[in-house]
Amino acid sequence: TARNLFLLPGDGIGPEAMGEVRKIIAYMNEAMNAGFVTDEGLVGGCAYDAHGAAISEADMQKALAADAVLFGAVGGPKWDSVPYEVRPEAGLLRLRKDLQLFANLRPAICYPALAAASSLKPELVEGLDILIIRELTGGVYFGEPKEIIDLGNGQKRGIDTQVYDTYEIERIAGVAFEMARTRQNRVCSMEKRNVMKSGVLWNQVVTETHKAKYSDVQLEHMLADAGGMQLVRQPKQFDVIVTDNLFGDMLSDVAAMLTGSLGMLPSASLGAPDGKTGKRKALYEPVHGSAPDIAGKGIANPIAMIASFAMCLRYSFNLVKEADDLEKAIANVLDKGIRTGDIMADGARQVGTVEMGDAILAEFKTL
Amino acid sequence: TARNLFLLPGDGIGPEAMGEVRKIIAYMNEAMNAGFVTDEGLVGGCAYDAHGAAISEADMQKALAADAVLFGAVGGPKWDSVPYEVRPEAGLLRLRKDLQLFANLRPAICYPALAAASSLKPELVEGLDILIIRELTGGVYFGEPKEIIDLGNGQKRGIDTQVYDTYEIERIAGVAFEMARTRQNRVCSMEKRNVMKSGVLWNQVVTETHKAKYSDVQLEHMLADAGGMQLVRQPKQFDVIVTDNLFGDMLSDVAAMLTGSLGMLPSASLGAPDGKTGKRKALYEPVHGSAPDIAGKGIANPIAMIASFAMCLRYSFNLVKEADDLEKAIANVLDKGIRTGDIMADGARQVGTVEMGDAILAEFKTL
Ligand SMILES: CC(C)[C@H](C(=O)O)[C@@H](O)C(=O)O
Ligand SMILES: CC(C)[C@H](C(=O)O)[C@@H](O)C(=O)O
Repeated sequence: TARNLFLLPGDGIGPEAMGEVRKIIAYMNEAMNAGFVTDEGLVGGCAYDAHGAAISEADMQKALAADAVLFGAVGGPKWDSVPYEVRPEAGLLRLRKDLQLFANLRPAICYPALAAASSLKPELVEGLDILIIRELTGGVYFGEPKEIIDLGNGQKRGIDTQVYDTYEIERIAGVAFEMARTRQNRVCSMEKRNVMKSGVLWNQVVTETHKAKYSDVQLEHMLADAGGMQLVRQPKQFDVIVTDNLFGDMLSDVAAMLTGSLGMLPSASLGAPDGKTGKRKALYEPVHGSAPDIAGKGIANPIAMIASFAMCLRYSFNLVKEADDLEKAIANVLDKGIRTGDIMADGARQVGTVEMGDAILAEFKTL
Repeated sequence: TARNLFLLPGDGIGPEAMGEVRKIIAYMNEAMNAGFVTDEGLVGGCAYDAHGAAISEADMQKALAADAVLFGAVGGPKWDSVPYEVRPEAGLLRLRKDLQLFANLRPAICYPALAAASSLKPELVEGLDILIIRELTGGVYFGEPKEIIDLGNGQKRGIDTQVYDTYEIERIAGVAFEMARTRQNRVCSMEKRNVMKSGVLWNQVVTETHKAKYSDVQLEHMLADAGGMQLVRQPKQFDVIVTDNLFGDMLSDVAAMLTGSLGMLPSASLGAPDGKTGKRKALYEPVHGSAPDIAGKGIANPIAMIASFAMCLRYSFNLVKEADDLEKAIANVLDKGIRTGDIMADGARQVGTVEMGDAILAEFKTL
C-alpha cells in the first residue's frame, strides 16, 4: 500500500532543503520499493501570495489526508506586515491545531563532529542527547480570549490566555514517559507552579500520571526558569524534558543552540494514535527557520530537513532500520569533514546544499 | 534626614547574606554619617511559620513606608506543600505588586575573575555586561482569571491570563530607553508577537514610544525564543534587553547563568517616581534563591546581596560614589583570589560567608 507524504516546503530556504529530501524519497522508492507517493502544497508567505491565506483549504485537506506532512519553513521580511490572521506562522499553527499534533518531539543532540561549534565548553556538550517533549496544541498559543481591546483614552489591552485541561497534560506526560522508557528512563517536567495555576495543575497531573502508570520511570520537577539555567549550566543532566507549549518553545530553542548543531536539528509533531488503525497524524519540520538572508543561494544546510525525514521514517512508517541508516549517513558525512557554510570548521571541505544532500544520499546507499 | 531601610532576610541563606550587608550599613553610618535607619521583618516561609501568611500586614506597612526594602530569599522544602495563597513566593509577589515595582533591573555582568567559571567559552563572556529590564507587575503573573476549575468527570482546567495595557508597556519601555542612554544606547525588545496578541501590542507600543521620545537610542526587536538562542550564542551582542514579566523571568535566569557569576548577581525592582518628591519605591534582592541545602552552614556567597545593596545606594539614595566603591571592593576581593565555595578556583583561597563579607568591607574602607 502507498505511503502518502504531503510536502509543504514553504518559504526561504525551505524549498532548497526539501529538494534534498526529494532525492532520498526517489531513491527509496526505486531501490527499496518504499512506495512513497508525494503531493505538494503551499504554506506561509508563498501561500499568502497565491491565495491570501497562510494555507489554503485545499492544502489543509491534503495535509489531513496524508500519512505524514513534511514541512520546510515559513516567513520572511516580505510578509512582516501582513495582517496577524494571515501571517506566515498562522499556516503552521493551523496545521498543528487542526491535525491535533499535540506532541512535539525535539531532540537536542550534539553531533560529535560539531561539539567544537557550540558556544559551551566542549566537555559540557559532547555526547549531549536530550529529548524535549513540548505540548503543541494548548496553552497560551490557542487559549481564548486572545485579543487586543481598545479601552479608549489611547489605551489598548493585549490579552492572551494560558489554558490546560487535565487530559491534555495527561496525554503529553504519557508520551514523555513512553519515550523515556526507550532511552535513559528519566523525565524532568518543567512549569512555573510558583506563579501559574496552570503550572500547579500541570505538576499535579504529571505526578498522578507517573504514579498511576509509569512509576518505573524516574521523575523530577523543575521550575521552568531554573530549567533554563540548568540547560546552560549542565545540559547532560537531562534525558527527557516535558513542558508546555510556550516554555517548550523557549527551552527547546535554548537547548538547540547549546548543541552547536542548530542547523541540524529535526522535530516531529505527532497526534494521538487512531482508535482503529493505530496511525498517528504527523508533521516533520526542521527546528531552524526560513533564513531569508541566505535563501536561493544554494548554501543552506539541508541536514535538519533530512533528519526530520529520518524521524518521519521512524515514527510514521516504522522504518527503523532506514531511519537509523539515514541518521548514520548524516553523522558519517560530517565525520568526513564535509560541511555547509554554517557549520564550517578548519580543515573541512565546504559544500552547498545540493552537494551536501548528494553526499548524504551516497553515504546512505552504502549502508 | 534619616534613610529608612526595611530588611527582609527571609529564608535559607537569606539571613546569612543579609548579615554581611548589615556590617556595611553600620560602617557607613559610623564612618560616613550615612544616616541609615533599619527595621526588620519576616517574609516567606519564616513569615508563614510565625503568622500563617507569607508576609504580615504590619510588615507590608513597613515596606510601604520605607525608602527601600532589602530582600534576601524565600522558600525551602519545609514549605513545599503549604497552600498556594500562602506559599513563600506569595510574599515577594505581594511586595512587587503592592509597592508597584514595575521595573526590574537585572544586570548580567561577568566578573573578569570569574569568566572561567561560565559554561560558555571564556571569549564569549569576558567583559559581558547586559542589563535586562523585566516588567514586574503585569503579564501572566497577575492577570485574571487565574484559577483551577473543576470541570467534572475528573477533569480540571488551569487558567492564567497574560494582560498588558498600553501604559504598562510604555513606562517599562521608557525605563529601558533611559537606562540605555547611560550605557551603550542600544535596546532589544523581546516578545512573541507571532503567537501572542499581548506581544503584538508590546511590539507596537515599544516602537511608538521609541519614535515619540527616544529615537536617539538604537532599537531592535527579537522574538523571545530567538532571544534565548542569541543569549547563548553571542551574549555580547546585547546592551539593554526589555521584556515582559514571564519572558524576563526565563531570559534573565539564562543570562545570569551565562556569566558564571550566578551567586553574584543583584537586582533592583523600582516603582515610578513620586509626583511630588520624585522618590521611587524600591526593593533590592539577589538573583539567586534561598539555597536551603547550604543554609546555616556559613558558606553561602554574600556577594549578590552586597551588590544588591550597592544598587540600593545608587538608585534609592543617589550615593553614586559609594555604590561604585562597593562594586569595586567586590571586584578587588575577587581579583585577590578570595572565594566562597560556589566560585572556588584553582589557587584561590576559600572562605566562608563572614570572611567574604569582612574582606569586602575591609576593601571598601580603603577606597
Ligand atoms: C514559528 C512559530 C510560530 C513557532 C512557535 O512559536 O511555535 C516556532 O518558534 C517553533 O518553535 O516552532
Ligand atoms: C520566586 C519567583 C516567584 C520569582 C519569579 O518568578 O518572579 C523568581 O523566579 C524571580 O525571578 O524573581
